[in-house]
Amino acid sequence: MVDGLDSRTAQIYGPIVERLEQVEERLHGISDVKTPFLPDLLDYVFRTQGKRVRPAITLLASQFHPHDHDQPVTMATAVELLHMATLIHDDTVDNSPLRRGKATVSDVWGKDVAVLLGDYVFATSATFVCDTENVRVIRRFSETIMQLSSGELLEFFNTNNWRQSRDDYNNRIYRKTASLFHTAAESGAILSGAPEETVQALEGYGYNIGMAFQIVDDILDVQGSAEEIGKPVGNDLLQGVLTLPTIMLLERYPDGNPVKELFARGRNGSGDQLKTVLEMIQNSEIIEDCYDVVGDHCRKAARSLESLDDIPARASLLMLSEYIMERTH
Amino acid sequence: MVDGLDSRTAQIYGPIVERLEQVEERLHGISDVKTPFLPDLLDYVFRTQGKRVRPAITLLASQFHPHDHDQPVTMATAVELLHMATLIHDDTVDNSPLRRGKATVSDVWGKDVAVLLGDYVFATSATFVCDTENVRVIRRFSETIMQLSSGELLEFFNTNNWRQSRDDYNNRIYRKTASLFHTAAESGAILSGAPEETVQALEGYGYNIGMAFQIVDDILDVQGSAEEIGKPVGNDLLQGVLTLPTIMLLERYPDGNPVKELFARGRNGSGDQLKTVLEMIQNSEIIEDCYDVVGDHCRKAARSLESLDDIPARASLLMLSEYIMERTH
Repeated sequence: MVDGLDSRTAQIYGPIVERLEQVEERLHGISDVKTPFLPDLLDYVFRTQGKRVRPAITLLASQFHPHDHDQPVTMATAVELLHMATLIHDDTVDNSPLRRGKATVSDVWGKDVAVLLGDYVFATSATFVCDTENVRVIRRFSETIMQLSSGELLEFFNTNNWRQSRDDYNNRIYRKTASLFHTAAESGAILSGAPEETVQALEGYGYNIGMAFQIVDDILDVQGSAEEIGKPVGNDLLQGVLTLPTIMLLERYPDGNPVKELFARGRNGSGDQLKTVLEMIQNSEIIEDCYDVVGDHCRKAARSLESLDDIPARASLLMLSEYIMERTH
Repeated sequence: MVDGLDSRTAQIYGPIVERLEQVEERLHGISDVKTPFLPDLLDYVFRTQGKRVRPAITLLASQFHPHDHDQPVTMATAVELLHMATLIHDDTVDNSPLRRGKATVSDVWGKDVAVLLGDYVFATSATFVCDTENVRVIRRFSETIMQLSSGELLEFFNTNNWRQSRDDYNNRIYRKTASLFHTAAESGAILSGAPEETVQALEGYGYNIGMAFQIVDDILDVQGSAEEIGKPVGNDLLQGVLTLPTIMLLERYPDGNPVKELFARGRNGSGDQLKTVLEMIQNSEIIEDCYDVVGDHCRKAARSLESLDDIPARASLLMLSEYIMERTH
């Protein structure tokens, strides 16, 4: 059983719970290598239990067409591995000491090991994709790694740049977050042998749910308490990352906006300035407006599913979009 | 034309010079992306002109069977891109300020950009491999990335460990260096549609030439002058990396060997200790013995080619093995 799921997640994962368990077994099987040092590192990474949202999407998206069950399980494993590899490198770049309350690889073994271990996990994910022997899926997977890394590069080079449009923002969050949700859904559909309309419907779902996921992350950063989201509030602002709430604040107050001052000072920005920005956001309707954008994406995700058969997996995908919208961490 | 080749390399590359030019064009085409910031970074990486030994091996290995020329060119591009991605991450891990006399990505833009750009170049190499649509080759490529990164991890965790056997050493250098030569040769043969005996013959060639390449690197580190190899002499010893000459020194003088003292002190090792170790190696027959091992690999590489047709590409592969053995930087 995938540990640590709340009852709602368990309900959503109902139609695929056994296959998700197979994903879990394959993930743990990866640590079983003879190379010295590697098993300990891999065990450490795989012991950090995530919610497995992305592999669940792959498995749910594969349910709309009768198929050999093995391939979507293999692909779901690859999707989770790619997510893990990305986290290892992201935590390295961000100097994050903690991930889900546990010390990051970079913090325990240093940046150098994190770079190489991330590469190893990237490559492992690619070998799983190769096991599907589906060249379309393999190619999409490679392109997704390009999108994820270029999204992170865009974020890095736009640090403290408040002159980013909503288009820039959408492009950036598609690459760094939504592209993997998109690929997770699309590849599940392709590997089930579903017809092209079904594949496209599920792609639309994956895209929109991925965009919604990132915007909720952005909202939680300016709204939640440190306890709820497991990291300090205003973290993005302090790191100079422009998020949707901040873009909306800049749109409303183009002159003398404290975000400009905060970004101009970079890492020397004061707690008082951060507090001012957060209060301005919290005292406006910006958070509601952001949730409207999230709601739009979730409605579009739901609309994408309308043409599909009304099976339990469809109900699960709908519940998942609501769950993502309402999540508090 | 591939710039900067000496007359001997130009002769070796004779049978494939036009295709190597196509590889060059494809490499430069990669910088032509609309994503902000990326073109400058990629241009910087691709402007560093290497000798293109690995893609040349792929192209030469494809000559033994009539085939569509496009696929080996695509694969050769992927092989060079993978090599470049590896260098970007290795220079990051090693804190190298220079590569071929030019500042490294890590030195110019920082480690974080180097991590993400390396990921992007890895992923780009994978999309080229996908263009071959050959699942066997794609899988070998993913496995090669696992070997390269695990080889680097083995090196990292064995820093200052003098208790490594020759088997440990061979395993490590196969992963970190020879695996890519192996894959370069094997994939060229597979994509030409050559029969399995030809593929295996070229695999044997790639394996042995790759091992020889790394051992020559090890020899140059204890033998050459700083001017010849473009980095300080004894660099591996100072970094705590055990190489074949050092293993041979430990085998000859198991008691009170200054390598143990040098490694025990790590980065605090003195120049005098390093000088003692280098003089002991240079005043013994160790360098000749190392060249004997290189010679063994080159002879095995040549023997692998005996069953193949006597075409210009075969002569080139033989010349290449001699060139690798005699190189001085």
